[in-house]
Amino acid sequence: MTDDSGTPRRPVAATAAGAGTLLQLLRDGVPRTRSELAALTGLARSTVAGRIDALLAAGLIAPTGETASTGGRPPATFAFNPAARIVIGADLGATHARLAVTDLAGSVLAAVNADLDIALGPKAVLDWAIEHAHLLLAEADRPLGDLLGIGIGLPGPVEHSTGRAVNPPIMPGWDGFDVPSYVRGHFPVPVLVDNDVNIMALGEHFTAWPEYEHLLFIKAATGIGCGIIASGQVYRGAQGAAGDMGHIRVAGADDAHCRCGNTGCLEAVASGAAIAAGLAGEGIAAGGSLDVVELARAGSVPALRRIRQAGRDIGEVLAGAVNFFNPSIIVIGGSLALAGDHLIAGVREVIYQRSLPLATRHLRIAAARTGESSGAIGAGVMVIEHALDPARLDALPAGAASGASGAEVSTRNG
Amino acid sequence: MTDDSGTPRRPVAATAAGAGTLLQLLRDGVPRTRSELAALTGLARSTVAGRIDALLAAGLIAPTGETASTGGRPPATFAFNPAARIVIGADLGATHARLAVTDLAGSVLAAVNADLDIALGPKAVLDWAIEHAHLLLAEADRPLGDLLGIGIGLPGPVEHSTGRAVNPPIMPGWDGFDVPSYVRGHFPVPVLVDNDVNIMALGEHFTAWPEYEHLLFIKAATGIGCGIIASGQVYRGAQGAAGDMGHIRVAGADDAHCRCGNTGCLEAVASGAAIAAGLAGEGIAAGGSLDVVELARAGSVPALRRIRQAGRDIGEVLAGAVNFFNPSIIVIGGSLALAGDHLIAGVREVIYQRSLPLATRHLRIAAARTGESSGAIGAGVMVIEHALDPARLDALPAGAASGASGAEVSTRNG
Repeated sequence: MTDDSGTPRRPVAATAAGAGTLLQLLRDGVPRTRSELAALTGLARSTVAGRIDALLAAGLIAPTGETASTGGRPPATFAFNPAARIVIGADLGATHARLAVTDLAGSVLAAVNADLDIALGPKAVLDWAIEHAHLLLAEADRPLGDLLGIGIGLPGPVEHSTGRAVNPPIMPGWDGFDVPSYVRGHFPVPVLVDNDVNIMALGEHFTAWPEYEHLLFIKAATGIGCGIIASGQVYRGAQGAAGDMGHIRVAGADDAHCRCGNTGCLEAVASGAAIAAGLAGEGIAAGGSLDVVELARAGSVPALRRIRQAGRDIGEVLAGAVNFFNPSIIVIGGSLALAGDHLIAGVREVIYQRSLPLATRHLRIAAARTGESSGAIGAGVMVIEHALDPARLDALPAGAASGASGAEVSTRNG
Repeated sequence: MTDDSGTPRRPVAATAAGAGTLLQLLRDGVPRTRSELAALTGLARSTVAGRIDALLAAGLIAPTGETASTGGRPPATFAFNPAARIVIGADLGATHARLAVTDLAGSVLAAVNADLDIALGPKAVLDWAIEHAHLLLAEADRPLGDLLGIGIGLPGPVEHSTGRAVNPPIMPGWDGFDVPSYVRGHFPVPVLVDNDVNIMALGEHFTAWPEYEHLLFIKAATGIGCGIIASGQVYRGAQGAAGDMGHIRVAGADDAHCRCGNTGCLEAVASGAAIAAGLAGEGIAAGGSLDVVELARAGSVPALRRIRQAGRDIGEVLAGAVNFFNPSIIVIGGSLALAGDHLIAGVREVIYQRSLPLATRHLRIAAARTGESSGAIGAGVMVIEHALDPARLDALPAGAASGASGAEVSTRNG
């Protein structure tokens, strides 16, 4: 059972304190010496030295000059180095794609937007992303070796653990496609995939609302989805399906037939597509949610009335989510939210009427702030949070010097 | 900014690796030597020695004999010691109270049940619990010094961070009462308080379903509530109000007036109280949910029909929660679940009809298994998980020997 040599019987990466623990300390930006880090963590001097070497090799920390000294050679200090490594975030929407290169603090160094139909299939869409990723690296003047990983958002259900789309309704050819493997054929780095609303939630939370621990991000556009941040982390649920609120039933909407086969779903009455169809029934031409927004901006009373009612219907479903999840903030985004305050006014009206006082006492309901780039930034943040996870970094071999490829940071999508 | 002595500028307890890291390793029950622990964690030998002393003093680990050796004095080994310390869990319901002493593995050493009206007020109810806690310690033959903490569940909203009830509808005199302070006047240990359905969820999860990461526990009784386990932890939300599903609106129930002031709430149509009222309207006497269960067990068709419909109404609200939260299991408990499979059959019927296929593909819907003791066990588990939290234990002073009082383990309710 035991041996007396003191060698481990089995690796216990998750509890071994090392590079991740040091990096968590150093992320506050304060420079520290090896001695200080040993004293703060209780780690052996030799352990600290090895972990510092590994983090230096990975580019995640940098020497920050020398401390004042009473004599002799002054000890080196180290701090987190957000500028040294970069990530690429890709927000691949139904008809539009956005790509951004950011540093480890989430600052955008280069970005590109394009009209691109997701229905072209995985190879055409991902080839576009791969080509433009190379161009953005050149534009940002950063070598491939600086790239820590790539995050991708897709407009449909994604199995996050494998990075594959699962029965996506508007994505022909994507079902089961191994996105990480395909992209890693061109970039030898970790590739993480999630659905678009989760990465938008992450981008909004990271950029605009980091102080709110429990956040619901609503994307109201052609469809309706919700990204959940619980205790500061994306909550995905058992099959990665959490937040799929578009097919929750709305009271009084039983005659509305939904594309999912059920009746009375939120999407069947309150999505941009449903509003456009309703306006068409009144003889007002609207091809989709962006047309609806234009009509509303031009003062169309039928459009304003339907957007307000969509807000109430979304509020009806969210009132249940507020009782159930007790969030600290609800952020309303997506193209329908661009029509001014009409959507959010309807949401507020019903939530404050239907939810319990304790759950709404300090609840904030706000419009999204990060705009069109939230998805691409969030996709990058997903990679940053994954790569800097203390448990993962603690499994780094001491003194490993494989920073150039980024491959030392393993991925759940691998 | 810096100094050259290597001393820390400020304490960083949450990231310092120490007693908590060691205990997480040792909770698997495998005995290890100090050398093994140093090698596994990268901690300095002196750090390991100090942390081992602290954990020994707190009684959380024990020496487990000596390893085989090639010569010389064999090194001592240590392992987690679940029998050495105990906790008390109290489930204080509307009309019934249960108290249990368990060890750190959740095994019940002594327990007591009694009819007790929560409306007697905090002092009378807590005095009963304090008196019987002393009697149970004597029955289990354990000294006060073995007690790690006390967990308490209350039948109403609780602010977990302070341990106070918040506007509890059925608990006159409890609003804002400082439960932890009162109990600590009699027991000098950490006291944690939560609502009854959260501790029942914790007891069910710990005892019967530890392998399910995302669990919803439904208590269907006089009222209807839900306890949420997300990623293995109780999820409480921003104000501790998460899981309050009794006042979510049910489609088609708009004429049902609820005691909360709204109409169409789940509790207004599907609670034991609502079923009893409905039966009374048919001329069938039923004073509450337990009478309803007796009628159902005796084969009353109106009672069976109403319980089945209550299951469908609960399923309607849960179908939304399944889309939103994507749990791996839903556990149905509470007195209404004692009427056989009628309630759960109604729940299943609607969830499988209304929820998305991806969210129900591997979803399990099961009857509660732990029975009446789940709340008291869960209240104890709440204390155990809190006390053994690595971040908290890492803040232990090295070599601290304050095990007798248990006061070395700080509490959020303190």
